[in-house]
Amino acid sequence: MNKNKWSKNTRREFLSAFSAAIGVSTVLPEWAYAKPPSISETAKMTIQQVIDLILTTIPGAPFNETVDTIKSGDGQQEVKGIVTTMFATIDVIKKAASLGANFIIAHEPTFYNHRDETSWLDNDQVFQFKNELLKKHNIVVWRFHDYWHTHRPDGVLMGVLTKLGWKNYFNSENPRLLVIPETSLEALIGHAKKSLGIRQVRFIGNPKQICKRVALSPGAAGGRSQIQLLQKEKPDVLIVGEVSEWETAEYIRDAQSMKLSISLIVLGHAESEEPGMEWLVPWLQPKVADINVTHVPSHYPFKEA
Amino acid sequence: MNKNKWSKNTRREFLSAFSAAIGVSTVLPEWAYAKPPSISETAKMTIQQVIDLILTTIPGAPFNETVDTIKSGDGQQEVKGIVTTMFATIDVIKKAASLGANFIIAHEPTFYNHRDETSWLDNDQVFQFKNELLKKHNIVVWRFHDYWHTHRPDGVLMGVLTKLGWKNYFNSENPRLLVIPETSLEALIGHAKKSLGIRQVRFIGNPKQICKRVALSPGAAGGRSQIQLLQKEKPDVLIVGEVSEWETAEYIRDAQSMKLSISLIVLGHAESEEPGMEWLVPWLQPKVADINVTHVPSHYPFKEA
Repeated sequence: MNKNKWSKNTRREFLSAFSAAIGVSTVLPEWAYAKPPSISETAKMTIQQVIDLILTTIPGAPFNETVDTIKSGDGQQEVKGIVTTMFATIDVIKKAASLGANFIIAHEPTFYNHRDETSWLDNDQVFQFKNELLKKHNIVVWRFHDYWHTHRPDGVLMGVLTKLGWKNYFNSENPRLLVIPETSLEALIGHAKKSLGIRQVRFIGNPKQICKRVALSPGAAGGRSQIQLLQKEKPDVLIVGEVSEWETAEYIRDAQSMKLSISLIVLGHAESEEPGMEWLVPWLQPKVADINVTHVPSHYPFKEA
Repeated sequence: MNKNKWSKNTRREFLSAFSAAIGVSTVLPEWAYAKPPSISETAKMTIQQVIDLILTTIPGAPFNETVDTIKSGDGQQEVKGIVTTMFATIDVIKKAASLGANFIIAHEPTFYNHRDETSWLDNDQVFQFKNELLKKHNIVVWRFHDYWHTHRPDGVLMGVLTKLGWKNYFNSENPRLLVIPETSLEALIGHAKKSLGIRQVRFIGNPKQICKRVALSPGAAGGRSQIQLLQKEKPDVLIVGEVSEWETAEYIRDAQSMKLSISLIVLGHAESEEPGMEWLVPWLQPKVADINVTHVPSHYPFKEA
């Protein structure tokens, strides 16, 4: 067989195996047909091709408005290894480089603001160092935030539910509300800390309160979103990653003063969503064949005193 | 003397004493001239008149765009007593009522969002309860945020500096940067906790780091503002009330990875600005004669576990 040309059968077999791997029956994007690869080339995907492949699984993708863009580097280069993480910190970038990975999929911003605007950071020494480090190692950082939350089920939520051992309580028709066996608030806090590997949480409520209806909103969805979840579900407890202290926390404080049994647990933003980027590994690995996909946790940056 | 008419001398004496009391030499607002009050009426001010009086001390006031509006009640009623606080929580409202006060000056929102928009809360039981409680006691809540920060010196900053015992390090030309005697980060944290009455803080940094240049930004100024303060002042440590965890905290974490000596202390939003509402009492009391001005702290709502 001519090494540069596939028989029709070989090409069909490759595409069929590829479709099975990505787990979708949609028509493949144009790049998949553009050049019949040799057998040894089947693993040679560009980073942009990995992104496009992921997007075939997201309802409504690509979005016109999204923060999920490439933050650094050239997506047309061949992907050599993939790292998933919450924050592409300097330490995570160094770890990715040491693993031979050139593609970091991060849930949160790289440059300290939601839209990763960098013009105001042009002369900033921290920005410059990080940017140079990424260039030096030819690493592409792509944010996977809006799309991962839009995936059905929400990839972040599934990661957290998996770690909490709560997948059996998940209801796809009402994914943010879990009805769990009755437990005290303090026991719930203990379980969350242990299963998610969190050193300390902040909370508002009576540790002895019995909790059964749990509203779960990892990350920092914003005060209005968090309070509207409370209005809709009337849970015993709301578990979030982060709050703005003048929003949800004050609402809960007032609710407590009214003797309503609504408590709040604040896990920490990074700790509350990192499981979703860990859960990305077994989801993505089968879709990219023999490209290594590794989760590198960025961890919670704070200490307490 | 006709009780309803002052002699020219009596009126001049009253206005002179009044000008001295409010500590300004600007022309008094129209209401001060509108009706010559009897002696017994000199203490009878409306709540709106107290607000107007405060605004005579704020550069550029009144602002076209500000969140410092009346959130509840009728400002035309006579002021019977004033309470200053960070958050007009349900507990603070009850305490104000028990003190016979009908005017709460709060630094932060009343209804769980920055602009105190309430249309989305119309059917919310917590909003309804709080709103009814305010109506029942005829209490006016006015936010004093933008104006208090615009006062020179910034009223919140002065309250915090006073409690920290750092007024001698204050430089009005560069109010956010304090050069203090060299101290370790852990000793600095200990001092802040003790002097501000804080149970626990979160921080990023090496407890043994020596700190001398302290950037102080109470409240939650936002990531860009906090990071730009770091860029401008290159402090050893930044002390703030609150951060969004994907902004300043990640910048500091990356700076630490670069071995830069920039640490972060997060005091808690309420704890970091409450001293500014306490400082408001001795500032405002002489301006409103025999109307009681009382500070009622709203305290930090969280517990740790």
